[in-house]
Amino acid sequence: MSELIDDYSKRLGNKLKIEYHNSKLTPTEYLKKLSENTILLDEGGDFLTSRNFATKFKAWQLSSDDVNLAVGPASGFPKRLPNQKISLSKLTFPHELASVILVEQLYRASEILKGSSYHKD
Amino acid sequence: MSELIDDYSKRLGNKLKIEYHNSKLTPTEYLKKLSENTILLDEGGDFLTSRNFATKFKAWQLSSDDVNLAVGPASGFPKRLPNQKISLSKLTFPHELASVILVEQLYRASEILKGSSYHKD
Repeated sequence: MSELIDDYSKRLGNKLKIEYHNSKLTPTEYLKKLSENTILLDEGGDFLTSRNFATKFKAWQLSSDDVNLAVGPASGFPKRLPNQKISLSKLTFPHELASVILVEQLYRASEILKGSSYHKD
Repeated sequence: MSELIDDYSKRLGNKLKIEYHNSKLTPTEYLKKLSENTILLDEGGDFLTSRNFATKFKAWQLSSDDVNLAVGPASGFPKRLPNQKISLSKLTFPHELASVILVEQLYRASEILKGSSYHKD
Protein backbone atom coordinates (compact mmCIF):
# COMPACT_ATOMS: atom_id res chain seq x y z
CA MET A 1 0.00 0.00 0.00
CA SER A 2 3.00 2.29 0.38
CA GLU A 3 3.02 2.63 -3.43
CA LEU A 4 -0.48 4.11 -3.29
CA ILE A 5 0.63 6.53 -0.59
CA ASP A 6 3.62 7.57 -2.71
CA ASP A 7 1.38 7.95 -5.76
CA TYR A 8 -1.03 10.36 -4.05
CA SER A 9 1.87 12.18 -2.44
CA LYS A 10 3.45 12.71 -5.87
CA ARG A 11 0.15 13.95 -7.26
CA LEU A 12 0.14 16.47 -4.41
CA GLY A 13 3.44 17.73 -5.79
CA ASN A 14 5.37 16.21 -2.90
CA LYS A 15 4.24 19.12 -0.72
CA LEU A 16 3.42 16.60 1.94
CA LYS A 17 6.07 15.17 4.22
CA ILE A 18 5.25 11.59 5.08
CA GLU A 19 7.03 9.86 7.93
CA TYR A 20 6.77 6.31 9.15
CA HIS A 21 7.61 6.02 12.83
CA ASN A 22 9.22 3.13 14.57
CA SER A 23 6.50 0.81 15.69
CA LYS A 24 8.40 0.09 18.89
CA LEU A 25 7.53 3.54 20.20
CA THR A 26 4.48 3.75 22.40
CA PRO A 27 1.82 6.15 21.06
CA THR A 28 2.76 8.62 23.81
CA GLU A 29 6.47 8.52 22.84
CA TYR A 30 5.49 8.87 19.20
CA LEU A 31 3.39 11.98 19.87
CA LYS A 32 6.26 13.57 21.80
CA LYS A 33 8.27 13.51 18.57
CA LEU A 34 5.66 15.65 16.84
CA SER A 35 4.82 19.30 17.39
CA GLU A 36 1.88 20.27 19.58
CA ASN A 37 -0.05 21.06 16.44
CA THR A 38 -0.92 17.44 15.71
CA ILE A 39 -4.36 16.23 14.72
CA LEU A 40 -5.05 12.60 15.50
CA LEU A 41 -6.82 10.29 13.09
CA ASP A 42 -8.62 8.28 15.69
CA GLU A 43 -11.97 6.97 16.76
CA GLY A 44 -14.06 9.45 18.69
CA GLY A 45 -13.12 12.28 16.32
CA ASP A 46 -15.34 14.37 14.07
CA PHE A 47 -16.79 12.72 10.97
CA LEU A 48 -16.26 15.01 8.00
CA THR A 49 -17.41 15.04 4.41
CA SER A 50 -14.66 15.49 1.82
CA ARG A 51 -15.78 19.13 1.38
CA ASN A 52 -15.52 19.74 5.15
CA PHE A 53 -12.07 18.14 5.03
CA ALA A 54 -11.08 20.46 2.15
CA THR A 55 -12.15 23.49 4.24
CA LYS A 56 -9.86 22.28 7.02
CA PHE A 57 -7.09 21.62 4.50
CA LYS A 58 -7.29 25.24 3.35
CA ALA A 59 -7.00 26.47 6.94
CA TRP A 60 -3.95 24.23 7.45
CA GLN A 61 -2.34 25.67 4.30
CA LEU A 62 -2.95 29.20 5.55
CA SER A 63 -1.63 28.41 9.01
CA SER A 64 1.82 29.77 9.80
CA ASP A 65 2.62 26.59 11.73
CA ASP A 66 3.17 23.12 10.37
CA VAL A 67 0.19 20.86 10.81
CA ASN A 68 0.74 17.19 11.57
CA LEU A 69 -1.80 14.49 10.96
CA ALA A 70 -1.05 11.32 12.86
CA VAL A 71 -2.48 7.89 12.10
CA GLY A 72 -2.21 5.87 15.27
CA PRO A 73 -1.26 2.29 15.97
CA ALA A 74 -3.72 -0.62 15.88
CA SER A 75 -4.38 -0.17 19.58
CA GLY A 76 -5.33 3.48 19.05
CA PHE A 77 -4.05 6.55 20.82
CA PRO A 78 -4.36 6.91 24.58
CA LYS A 79 -7.75 8.29 25.55
CA ARG A 80 -8.18 11.89 26.78
CA LEU A 81 -5.36 13.40 24.75
CA PRO A 82 -6.06 17.11 24.30
CA ASN A 83 -5.37 16.97 20.54
CA GLN A 84 -8.04 17.62 17.95
CA LYS A 85 -9.32 14.37 16.43
CA ILE A 86 -10.72 13.41 13.04
CA SER A 87 -12.38 10.05 12.32
CA LEU A 88 -12.25 8.65 8.80
CA SER A 89 -15.18 6.30 9.38
CA LYS A 90 -17.05 4.37 12.04
CA LEU A 91 -15.41 1.30 10.49
CA THR A 92 -11.98 0.17 11.69
CA PHE A 93 -9.26 0.07 9.04
CA PRO A 94 -5.77 -1.39 9.05
CA HIS A 95 -3.16 1.26 9.83
CA GLU A 96 -1.79 1.28 6.27
CA LEU A 97 -5.20 1.47 4.62
CA ALA A 98 -6.08 4.41 6.90
CA SER A 99 -2.91 6.12 5.66
CA VAL A 100 -3.90 5.57 2.01
CA ILE A 101 -7.38 6.97 2.72
CA LEU A 102 -5.89 10.01 4.47
CA VAL A 103 -3.45 10.83 1.66
CA GLU A 104 -6.22 10.39 -0.95
CA GLN A 105 -8.40 12.82 1.04
CA LEU A 106 -5.56 15.35 1.11
CA TYR A 107 -5.21 15.01 -2.67
CA ARG A 108 -9.01 15.23 -3.06
CA ALA A 109 -9.04 18.35 -0.85
CA SER A 110 -6.43 20.03 -3.05
CA GLU A 111 -8.48 19.16 -6.16
CA ILE A 112 -11.69 20.48 -4.52
CA LEU A 113 -9.92 23.76 -3.73
CA LYS A 114 -8.64 23.97 -7.33
CA GLY A 115 -12.18 23.36 -8.59
CA SER A 116 -11.10 20.40 -10.74
CA SER A 117 -13.46 17.63 -11.82
CA TYR A 118 -11.77 15.00 -9.59
CA HIS A 119 -14.38 15.36 -6.85
CA LYS A 120 -17.99 14.93 -7.92
CA ASP A 121 -20.96 15.52 -5.66
CA MET B 1 -5.49 -1.48 -6.15
CA SER B 2 -6.89 -4.61 -7.78
CA GLU B 3 -3.97 -6.53 -6.22
CA LEU B 4 -5.18 -5.49 -2.76
CA ILE B 5 -8.69 -6.64 -3.64
CA ASP B 6 -7.32 -9.98 -4.83
CA ASP B 7 -5.22 -10.29 -1.68
CA TYR B 8 -8.16 -9.85 0.72
CA SER B 9 -10.31 -12.08 -1.48
CA LYS B 10 -7.69 -14.85 -1.26
CA ARG B 11 -7.49 -14.42 2.51
CA LEU B 12 -11.28 -14.92 2.55
CA GLY B 13 -10.62 -18.28 0.92
CA ASN B 14 -11.99 -17.06 -2.42
CA LYS B 15 -15.49 -17.54 -1.02
CA LEU B 16 -16.30 -14.15 -2.43
CA LYS B 17 -17.16 -13.68 -6.09
CA ILE B 18 -15.90 -10.33 -7.30
CA GLU B 19 -17.09 -8.92 -10.60
CA TYR B 20 -16.11 -5.76 -12.38
CA HIS B 21 -18.88 -4.46 -14.58
CA ASN B 22 -18.55 -2.63 -17.83
CA SER B 23 -18.34 1.04 -17.05
CA LYS B 24 -20.41 1.84 -20.14
CA LEU B 25 -23.50 0.51 -18.39
CA THR B 26 -25.64 3.07 -16.65
CA PRO B 27 -26.10 2.35 -12.90
CA THR B 28 -29.68 1.28 -13.64
CA GLU B 29 -28.58 -1.19 -16.34
CA TYR B 30 -25.86 -2.47 -14.00
CA LEU B 31 -28.34 -3.14 -11.19
CA LYS B 32 -30.62 -5.03 -13.57
CA LYS B 33 -27.82 -7.56 -14.03
CA LEU B 34 -27.81 -8.31 -10.30
CA SER B 35 -30.39 -10.10 -8.22
CA GLU B 36 -32.95 -8.16 -6.21
CA ASN B 37 -30.97 -8.98 -3.10
CA THR B 38 -28.37 -6.27 -3.71
CA ILE B 39 -27.12 -3.89 -1.05
CA LEU B 40 -25.73 -0.63 -2.37
CA LEU B 41 -22.56 0.94 -1.01
CA ASP B 42 -23.68 4.50 -1.40
CA GLU B 43 -24.06 7.78 0.38
CA GLY B 44 -27.20 8.10 2.44
CA GLY B 45 -26.78 4.56 3.78
CA ASP B 46 -26.31 3.39 7.35
CA PHE B 47 -22.94 4.01 9.00
CA LEU B 48 -21.76 0.83 10.67
CA THR B 49 -18.95 -0.11 12.99
CA SER B 50 -16.87 -3.11 11.91
CA ARG B 51 -18.66 -5.20 14.55
CA ASN B 52 -22.08 -4.13 13.20
CA PHE B 53 -20.81 -5.05 9.73
CA ALA B 54 -19.72 -8.47 11.01
CA THR B 55 -23.21 -9.06 12.42
CA LYS B 56 -24.66 -8.31 8.98
CA PHE B 57 -22.03 -10.52 7.37
CA LYS B 58 -23.14 -13.43 9.54
CA ALA B 59 -26.76 -12.90 8.49
CA TRP B 60 -25.69 -12.87 4.83
CA GLN B 61 -23.82 -16.14 5.32
CA LEU B 62 -26.89 -17.71 6.89
CA SER B 63 -29.18 -16.39 4.17
CA SER B 64 -30.38 -18.98 1.66
CA ASP B 65 -30.09 -16.39 -1.13
CA ASP B 66 -26.95 -14.89 -2.60
CA VAL B 67 -26.24 -11.42 -1.29
CA ASN B 68 -24.70 -8.86 -3.63
CA LEU B 69 -22.86 -5.78 -2.48
CA ALA B 70 -22.55 -3.17 -5.21
CA VAL B 71 -20.08 -0.28 -5.24
CA GLY B 72 -21.52 2.33 -7.55
CA PRO B 73 -19.95 4.57 -10.15
CA ALA B 74 -18.40 7.97 -9.39
CA SER B 75 -21.73 9.65 -10.05
CA GLY B 76 -23.45 7.42 -7.48
CA PHE B 77 -26.56 5.32 -7.85
CA PRO B 78 -29.86 6.89 -8.87
CA LYS B 79 -31.70 8.29 -5.86
CA ARG B 80 -34.75 6.57 -4.41
CA LEU B 81 -33.76 3.00 -5.27
CA PRO B 82 -35.57 0.62 -2.89
CA ASN B 83 -32.36 -1.30 -2.10
CA GLN B 84 -30.81 -1.35 1.35
CA LYS B 85 -27.81 0.98 1.55
CA ILE B 86 -24.58 0.97 3.54
CA SER B 87 -22.20 3.95 3.72
CA LEU B 88 -18.51 3.32 4.31
CA SER B 89 -17.86 6.88 5.47
CA LYS B 90 -19.07 10.46 5.16
CA LEU B 91 -15.93 10.98 3.07
CA THR B 92 -16.02 10.33 -0.68
CA PHE B 93 -13.60 7.68 -1.94
CA PRO B 94 -12.52 6.72 -5.45
CA HIS B 95 -14.47 3.73 -6.74
CA GLU B 96 -11.48 1.38 -6.51
CA LEU B 97 -10.48 2.47 -3.01
CA ALA B 98 -14.10 1.93 -1.86
CA SER B 99 -13.82 -1.61 -3.26
CA VAL B 100 -10.59 -2.24 -1.32
CA ILE B 101 -12.23 -0.94 1.88
CA LEU B 102 -15.28 -3.15 1.33
CA VAL B 103 -13.27 -6.32 0.75
CA GLU B 104 -11.08 -5.58 3.79
CA GLN B 105 -14.26 -5.16 5.89
CA LEU B 106 -15.55 -8.51 4.65
CA TYR B 107 -12.24 -10.12 5.62
CA ARG B 108 -12.32 -8.29 8.99
CA ALA B 109 -15.92 -9.48 9.54
CA SER B 110 -14.88 -13.09 8.96
CA GLU B 111 -12.00 -12.67 11.43
CA ILE B 112 -14.31 -11.05 14.02
CA LEU B 113 -16.70 -14.00 13.69
CA LYS B 114 -13.78 -16.42 14.09
CA GLY B 115 -12.66 -14.52 17.19
CA SER B 116 -9.14 -14.01 15.84
CA SER B 117 -6.84 -11.20 16.96
CA TYR B 118 -7.04 -9.36 13.60
CA HIS B 119 -9.68 -6.93 14.86
CA LYS B 120 -8.84 -5.03 18.04
CA ASP B 121 -11.24 -2.76 19.84
